[in-house]
Amino acid sequence: MSENGVVTVPEGTAAELAEAFAAASPEGSRSRTLVWQDPVATASIGATMTGMEYMTAVVTGKVPPPPIAVTMRLRPVELEEGRVVFEGEPGEEHYNPIGVVHGGYAATLLDSALGCAVHTTLPAGVAYTSLGLEAKFVRPLTRDTGRVLCEASVLYRGRKQATAEASLKAAEGSKLLAHGVATCMILGEA
Amino acid sequence: MSENGVVTVPEGTAAELAEAFAAASPEGSRSRTLVWQDPVATASIGATMTGMEYMTAVVTGKVPPPPIAVTMRLRPVELEEGRVVFEGEPGEEHYNPIGVVHGGYAATLLDSALGCAVHTTLPAGVAYTSLGLEAKFVRPLTRDTGRVLCEASVLYRGRKQATAEASLKAAEGSKLLAHGVATCMILGEA
Amino acid sequence: MSENGVVTVPEGTAAELAEAFAAASPEGSRSRTLVWQDPVATASIGATMTGMEYMTAVVTGKVPPPPIAVTMRLRPVELEEGRVVFEGEPGEEHYNPIGVVHGGYAATLLDSALGCAVHTTLPAGVAYTSLGLEAKFVRPLTRDTGRVLCEASVLYRGRKQATAEASLKAAEGSKLLAHGVATCMILGEA
Amino acid sequence: MSENGVVTVPEGTAAELAEAFAAASPEGSRSRTLVWQDPVATASIGATMTGMEYMTAVVTGKVPPPPIAVTMRLRPVELEEGRVVFEGEPGEEHYNPIGVVHGGYAATLLDSALGCAVHTTLPAGVAYTSLGLEAKFVRPLTRDTGRVLCEASVLYRGRKQATAEASLKAAEGSKLLAHGVATCMILGEA
Repeated sequence: MSENGVVTVPEGTAAELAEAFAAASPEGSRSRTLVWQDPVATASIGATMTGMEYMTAVVTGKVPPPPIAVTMRLRPVELEEGRVVFEGEPGEEHYNPIGVVHGGYAATLLDSALGCAVHTTLPAGVAYTSLGLEAKFVRPLTRDTGRVLCEASVLYRGRKQATAEASLKAAEGSKLLAHGVATCMILGEA
Repeated sequence: MSENGVVTVPEGTAAELAEAFAAASPEGSRSRTLVWQDPVATASIGATMTGMEYMTAVVTGKVPPPPIAVTMRLRPVELEEGRVVFEGEPGEEHYNPIGVVHGGYAATLLDSALGCAVHTTLPAGVAYTSLGLEAKFVRPLTRDTGRVLCEASVLYRGRKQATAEASLKAAEGSKLLAHGVATCMILGEA
Repeated sequence: MSENGVVTVPEGTAAELAEAFAAASPEGSRSRTLVWQDPVATASIGATMTGMEYMTAVVTGKVPPPPIAVTMRLRPVELEEGRVVFEGEPGEEHYNPIGVVHGGYAATLLDSALGCAVHTTLPAGVAYTSLGLEAKFVRPLTRDTGRVLCEASVLYRGRKQATAEASLKAAEGSKLLAHGVATCMILGEA
Repeated sequence: MSENGVVTVPEGTAAELAEAFAAASPEGSRSRTLVWQDPVATASIGATMTGMEYMTAVVTGKVPPPPIAVTMRLRPVELEEGRVVFEGEPGEEHYNPIGVVHGGYAATLLDSALGCAVHTTLPAGVAYTSLGLEAKFVRPLTRDTGRVLCEASVLYRGRKQATAEASLKAAEGSKLLAHGVATCMILGEA
C-alpha cells in the first residue's frame, strides 16, 4: 500500500466505506436521501427561453430544481436582470476532513449565483459557459452557521464575455463568509 | 411574486420541490441515499496526527471518509508528501440547470486535492486553512464523463503560506477538464 | 537561432534594441526620463508609522513617491480607512506587442489600490504582504483612454488576512475597464 | 485636505513630485531614460503574421520591442509553439512604497509570458485578448534579485478560449518567486 513514500488505495468508494462504518456503528452515523429529476430534460426546456424566463421557471417551481440544488441545499430566492440572490443551508454532508464545511460548498454557491446573474441577461437562443471561478474564503462555515445568502451582480456584460461578483454571508448577522468573481463566455449573441 | 422586476420566492426548499415532482411523476425521478459519520469527531482525531498520518488514515479507511467525499463521490487514491491524486465520479445529482455537471463539482475536487496536497506537508499540531481557489473550467463534465482524476502538487511551502496547483482530467483519454491553483495559510508552524 | 522548433535569443536588452532602432530612425521614436528617489530609505520611514499616516505622507508629498508611481504614472488621490482611489495615466511606454496598453498596467493599478486599501487599516508596527492578485480585463486601455481611476475597498479584515476588491474605470465616462480582488497577509498583528 | 476622514490631493503627478525632490536633493535621486518606437505601427505589422512569425520578429529584433519591454526591462528569450520563456531585470524604478519591487512587475512578466504562449499557437488573421490574470506572489523581488526567468505553457487551446500557466524564478538559484494562470479569448478562429 506504500511504495517509495507513495500511499495508494485500489478499492472501495467513499460511499461504500461510510456504509461499512454505519453497519459497524449505526449510532454515530447519519443519512439523507436525495431525490431529483432528469436534469437534461429540464435543461432542454430552458434552452428555448430567455434567461429570465428560465430562471423564473426554476425559481417558481414550474420546472424541477436542478439536482445540485437538492444535493447542496441551495435555491435562488431573488432574481432580476443582472442580479440574483441564492440561499443555502450547509449541512454535515458537506463537511471536509478538517472539521468544517468544505470550501467546495461556498464555491458551488458562488458559482451558481455568478452564473445565474449572467444567465438573467441572456435573450432566448443565447447560451453561456463559465470559464472559471475565483473564490475567497474568509470565515469557516459549519453545521451551526445556519442559512446563508449569496448575492451576485453582473459587473460587465459584453457580446462575448461577462464578468460578475458575488458575496456569501450568514443570513443571521450578515457576516461575510466568502466572496468571488467569475468570467462567463457568451455563446451565440448576434 | 414579481415587483419592480424582482422575482422573489418565499417558501419551499429544492429538496421539497424535487420530492413534489417525484410524487407527481415518479418515472422521471431518481434517488440516492447518502450515509456518513460525524465529521467533527473524525477531525478531532486528525488534529493530533501529522498530515501524512491523517491523510493515510482517511485513504486506508482507518477513519470514516469525510461526508463531502460521499456526497460528491470523490476519494484520494494516491498520496505522498506534497502531492496527491483524487478520483471522482460526477453523477446526475451534481447537475446544474443548464444540463451539465455544476462547476462546483470540479471546484470541490480541485479544492480537495489542493488542500490535501498542502496538508501532507504539515507536522502534528500544525493546521492549514484555504484562503481561496482559482479554478478554470475548460471542458464540460457530464453524466457520461465517467471517472475523473485530479492531481495536485505543492508549488511553494513557506512558514505562513503555501501554494499548490491541480489539474482535473478524464480517467479515460486523459483530456484536461479543469485546472486550478490555491493559497493556503499555515497555522501554528514554529 | 532555431533548433527543434525553439527560437532562442542570447544577446541584447529591449532597451538596447529600442535605442538601436531610434538611432536608425529617430523620427518614429519617443523618449521619457524617469526620476525617482531611493525607495528603501522612504519605506524605512514608513515602517514606523500607521498605514494611514504613511499613506497620507505619500499622498501629500511629505515623502518621495514610490518609483513605480513615476514609472506607471499613477498616484493615490483619495484615502480613508479601508478605501483608496488611485489615478493613472496610461501611456505609450506601457504598450504591449499587440497594440494596446499591457495588462500589467491595469494589474499594477489594481494591485496598488488593493494593497494600499489594506495598508490604511494597519496600526504602526504591523505590516502586510500581498499573496496574489486576480484581475479581470474587460475593455482595452489605449493611449487615447486618458486618465483612469481605480477605487479599492477592504471586504474582510481579519487578524491574519485581509481581502479587498477594486475597479478601474475611465475618468471620462466611467466605463469599467478592469476589476480585481486580492488577499493580503497581515504580519505582526497582536 | 482631510474631510470626514477622507484625505484628498488635487494637484501634481508622481513624476512632478519626484522631480521636485530631485531638485532639492539630487544626491538621493536617480534617473533613467526610456526610448521606444510607435507601438501601434509595429502591432499592425504583426496582425498579418502568424503568432510564431510575429513573436520571432520581436525576439530577433526585426521589429522594435514593445515599449512595455523597455519600461519593465523584460524580453522573450525562448519561443516555441505553446511555450515561451521571458527574462526580466527588476530595478529600483519598479519599487512600491513598502520597500520591494511592486507586485505589478511580477504580474506584468506573468501576463506577458502567458499571453505570448497563447499567441504562438495562433494562425495569421486570428487574434487573442487576455480576459484576466491570477497571480500568486510567494517571495519578494528586490533590487538585489537580479535576472528573473518566467516560463509559460499553454494548458488548454480551444477554438474560443485558451488557458496557460506560468512560473517566475530567480535566474540564479531558481527559487520560485511568483506563479500564475490566465484565460485568453481567441478571436476569429474558423
